[in-house]
This record gives sequence, structure tokens and C-alpha cells, in this order.
Amino acid sequence: MREPEGRLATIDTGPPRLGRGDVLHAGRRLAGRVWRTPVVRSDQLDALSGARLWLKAENLQRGGSFKVRGALLALERLAASGSRGVVAQSTGNHAIAVALAAREHRLPTTVVLPSDAAPTKVRRIRETGAEVRLVGTVLAERVAVVEELRERHGYDVVDPYDDPLVVAGQGTATAELISQVAEAGGRLDTVVVPIGGGSAIAGACLAAAGHDVAVVGAEPEAVPAFTAALDAGRPVTVPLRYTLADGLRPDRIGDLPFRLAQGRVSTVLEVAEAAIADALRAALLHARLLVEPAAATALAAAMSFAAEHGGDVGVLLTGGNVEPALVSSLLAGHGTGVPRTAMH
Amino acid sequence: MREPEGRLATIDTGPPRLGRGDVLHAGRRLAGRVWRTPVVRSDQLDALSGARLWLKAENLQRGGSFKVRGALLALERLAASGSRGVVAQSTGNHAIAVALAAREHRLPTTVVLPSDAAPTKVRRIRETGAEVRLVGTVLAERVAVVEELRERHGYDVVDPYDDPLVVAGQGTATAELISQVAEAGGRLDTVVVPIGGGSAIAGACLAAAGHDVAVVGAEPEAVPAFTAALDAGRPVTVPLRYTLADGLRPDRIGDLPFRLAQGRVSTVLEVAEAAIADALRAALLHARLLVEPAAATALAAAMSFAAEHGGDVGVLLTGGNVEPALVSSLLAGHGTGVPRTAMH
Repeated sequence: MREPEGRLATIDTGPPRLGRGDVLHAGRRLAGRVWRTPVVRSDQLDALSGARLWLKAENLQRGGSFKVRGALLALERLAASGSRGVVAQSTGNHAIAVALAAREHRLPTTVVLPSDAAPTKVRRIRETGAEVRLVGTVLAERVAVVEELRERHGYDVVDPYDDPLVVAGQGTATAELISQVAEAGGRLDTVVVPIGGGSAIAGACLAAAGHDVAVVGAEPEAVPAFTAALDAGRPVTVPLRYTLADGLRPDRIGDLPFRLAQGRVSTVLEVAEAAIADALRAALLHARLLVEPAAATALAAAMSFAAEHGGDVGVLLTGGNVEPALVSSLLAGHGTGVPRTAMH
Repeated sequence: MREPEGRLATIDTGPPRLGRGDVLHAGRRLAGRVWRTPVVRSDQLDALSGARLWLKAENLQRGGSFKVRGALLALERLAASGSRGVVAQSTGNHAIAVALAAREHRLPTTVVLPSDAAPTKVRRIRETGAEVRLVGTVLAERVAVVEELRERHGYDVVDPYDDPLVVAGQGTATAELISQVAEAGGRLDTVVVPIGGGSAIAGACLAAAGHDVAVVGAEPEAVPAFTAALDAGRPVTVPLRYTLADGLRPDRIGDLPFRLAQGRVSTVLEVAEAAIADALRAALLHARLLVEPAAATALAAAMSFAAEHGGDVGVLLTGGNVEPALVSSLLAGHGTGVPRTAMH
């Protein structure tokens, strides 16, 4: 992958020189190219949590997740530098986002997915015209194919986490949320963001800087990669366990996101699987939004946090790419209530 | 029920003297009291229909439907005139809306529902503190209880359709849609609205006046009450047949709505049951919005209309109060596609 250009080229050593200005700049570049997704209120969720929740509905974003923001910026950079094509590996939203963004620049695109990837996601990627390679089931196998494509075709790799443009792009979702709440006459006390590879939480930290908004992270109890990194003082690999939140399965937080988020995240909540399922149902039945389990993880944490602390709590609902069969089975199950979470 | 006051008091005879100004006035009264629900775009639905769809997401409205708009205005009028309490009969959204609005004025409220009313709707009404009376299964039984409550307690009846304030209030949803599309740099050619008792379509006709926006109605093939009224030149009762779209089950359009909509609606599309189901799935999986079958009826008609005529097509997604079990079974069924409709 080419080095990031200009002011961003210095971030690879020492503390990252990435700030709120980069998010604002990214927001100007993205204007008119992504939906300015709505911030949704729900009387019912407010009543359940005893606070005011402001739901940033990135499940309604192009490609079904906030990841198109960073991907558009990364592809814009690559296209300007004469890229011959791009390759990305992912289990989901990053691949969809890269495929969508690459299509705008008419760049040949190959995405490498595990052979058991969700059919819905594979179909969405194929609809963009991108080539899909289904390879093995573990990360190392996919990375090997990415390397092969990079070397054989001279393709550029679009990293989902460790790329300052991607992080700044993802931060625009939180920046919009803060602005939209202000436009509606409110003022956020807290924003709750899910943690997988870390681009969302790192972007949120950048966007919240100078706003007196506390940033709360939410990760599955099953894969507490950020909590483990905080304990170790550096990113570490945690044992991979199953979680409903497929978007939060990365077993290690990215280096750049960790450096940006460490010391700025005020609280991390670990969310139990049952609470993720409850929150997905609550989003659907009370806020009438279809969200994916990663976004439901943030909602579960937000409702727990809000019930304890009150105030105005923003929630980054990162995406809505979820298998219909999962939703069907969750709806056929038991009712919703305040999700249960364990405070870290 | 007390007579409407002021300029609206004259509408009961001759052609209705209700116009776009009444909708704009209603919008000013409602500002800050209802959500300004978002207009949602979906690349996937656009690709399926070959046009640009603009989805007015009133499923995200307070109480889960656009009906809170008219109910708030009606209750404001009743409270100002010294009402001692209100009563409404309904199978769903109107009852929820009246209960919510009456709570704001601390007016005792009784809603009369059929004994087989949807549990979700009964629960939502009880959450507002309103009294729920479950009475029989046919309209006449409910109306008898409403009359009894009116006489015994001096309660005021809030009519769902034949009330100029209610119609003007419901029209604010379409007025917002037209404004929001313009704010986003677009311009609607058509707005598609579902037809049940007629308050939505009548309100849409008022809101669209002077905007060069064609108003298209959508009704279930099973209960074509508006089509029958157009054929007869006056509201007539049609045979009651089952439709998934419980909100569109009224077997006769209201007198006032018919007078307002007759001659202004450019096309009426009759939607088959399978197309309603397809559109509900499409809204959920492609636009990630949970809508009720009445709203899906409009979406089905809009996608069919858009596929034939193209352009910028607004859709009033009237509500999102739907039984989880229905959604679960629809998701467990077959896939989505362009809904099938029959042009009238």
C-alpha cells in the first residue's frame, strides 16, 4: 500500500498526529457522497433507559454501514495516485464499502472473504461488480491471497483499521451525530461506539475532542480485545470466541486505533451475547430500525450506561447488514427489555 | 363531538374549504411536538425500481405512526374547549395516537378496540395510561360503546377521518416530505400514499396543491374502498375481505377525505397481498426500516409506479406498528423482489 500523503504521512511513528481537523476535513470531502444519515429518537427506548438516546442511524448508510466513509476517502487517494486496482480482505462491511467506493473510480476490485461468509454480504459485493474470492476460514489464509494479488497484479491493499484516512473518515459519523444533536437543540454528554478493529472508536475519539463528550466503548464480552489491550498497554491478541456480533470479531485492535483511543475512552462496557440479541430486537421493535449485531452491542451498552448515568447519550449504530434468518429467529424468541451488560 | 372552531367550522357542507394553508398552519402548531422524521434513501431500492425513491419514515414517528399529528391537533382543540375526556374507537394507530395526545393534556381517555386487537397495540396504549375496552369484533359494537361513553361521561369522540383538523394534521407528513426533498436538492414528481379511511391521502392532496406533485394512492386489492367510491361518485361500503394491511381495512372511505381526494388523486394502484409482503421485506432488508403492512402497501405501489414511470417518487411510510410474529414469519419465507401490483 502506498504511504499516506501530506500531513498524514507522519503518523507511523510516535503519537499519532491525527486530530479533529482531519475528521472535519474528511467530512467536507464526503459531503454529498454519503448519506447524512438521520439521528433517530425513540420515546420507547428513552422510557426503557430513563435517559435521552440519540441514535445515529448508519444502518441507513450507503452499503449498509458507516464503513463506506473511510473507504471512499481511501479509494479517492488511491485513484489519484494512479492505482491499478484494489484488494481488501474482510468478513463483511469493509469489503462491501471498498467494493462500492472502488466502483465509483472504476478500479478493478477483488475482495477476499472466508468461504463461510454471510450470503447476504457476498451478494451485495457481487452486485457492485467486484470480484469475490472465497478463501478458507481463517485470517491468515485470506491475507496470503491478498498478498498474492498485490504482488501479481500490483493491486493496492485497503486496510480496514490501520489507515489514518480510514479512521478520519469513520470519525465523520460521530462528528455528524454531535452536530445533528446540537442542531436539534440538544447536547450530548456521552457517545457510545462499538469496538472491533477500532476504526469507529478511534474516529469517535477524534470527533469528540474539544466537545466535552465522553466516549464510551462497547465490545462483546466474548472478544474483549480493547479491554485486553488497555490492560497490556498495547494491542494483544485475545482468544477467539464466538459472538453474535460478527463485525466485532477481530481478535486484536489495530495499532493506530489503539494509540488514538487509549487514554481518551472513558469507559469500556463488555456486553453479553443475550444483551446483544435483546438490543437488536429493541432497535427493531421500539426504534423500528434494522441494525446488525455490532450496532446492537453499542445500543445494549448505551441503554445500560444511560440507565445508570442518565443524560443525553448518543449511540453509533454502525450498520444494518444482518442475515434475515437471524432476525427471524430473534423475533421468534423471547421479548425485549433493558439489555444486561457487565461494566468493566 | 364539538364543532370545529373558526375557519374550519364551515367545511361540513358543500365543497370542503380546507387548503394547503391549513396544512402549513398545522405544521407550525406541531413543530417541536412531533419528530421531523427523516426522508430515507436506499441505493438498493432505487436499483430495484429504476427510479429515485424518497421514503418519508413516519414509522419512526412518536407512537409509531403519522396519526399522532392529527391526534395532537384534535386533542389541543378539545382541551382548549374544556373537554372532560375523550373516547376513540380504532383497530390500531389512531387509538395509540389519541392516547398519546390525550396524555399530554391529562385528559381521561378510553379507547375501544376489538377483542382480537393486536397485543402490541394494546400494550402500547396501556403504557400511556389510557383505558382500553376490548369489545366484540365488528365496528358497530365498538361504536355502540363509544356512544355510551360519550353520553354517560360527556366524553368527546375523536374521529379518525372525518375531522378537518385531523386531515390537515396528517397532511403535514406529506408537506414535510416535499420540503425535505427540496432541502436535499431534489424535486418530487410523485408522492405515493396508502388509502384506508382516507386521512393520509386527503392530507397529501392538500399538501401537494401548488407543488406540481402527482398524488398516487395505494390500496389493498382486497379492500378497494377508494376505487369503489371513485366509480360510484361517493363513498360506498365494499365487501370486507382479509388483508395483511390491517391499517387499511376500513371498508368505506370517510366523506371528508373522499371530497378532498376526488379529482386530485391522479392514479390509484391496487396492491396484491403478496406484493404487500414483498415490500415489507424489501423495506426491512434494503432500507433497514421496519414498516407496517399499510406502509408496505404504499411502497409496493411506489416501486411498481417508479419502475414504469421513473423520476423522483416520494413514499409516505405511514407507520411501523407491526406484530413481531408477522415479521418473523415473513423473513422466514421467500426472498424479495420488485413487488407485483395491478394498475387500476
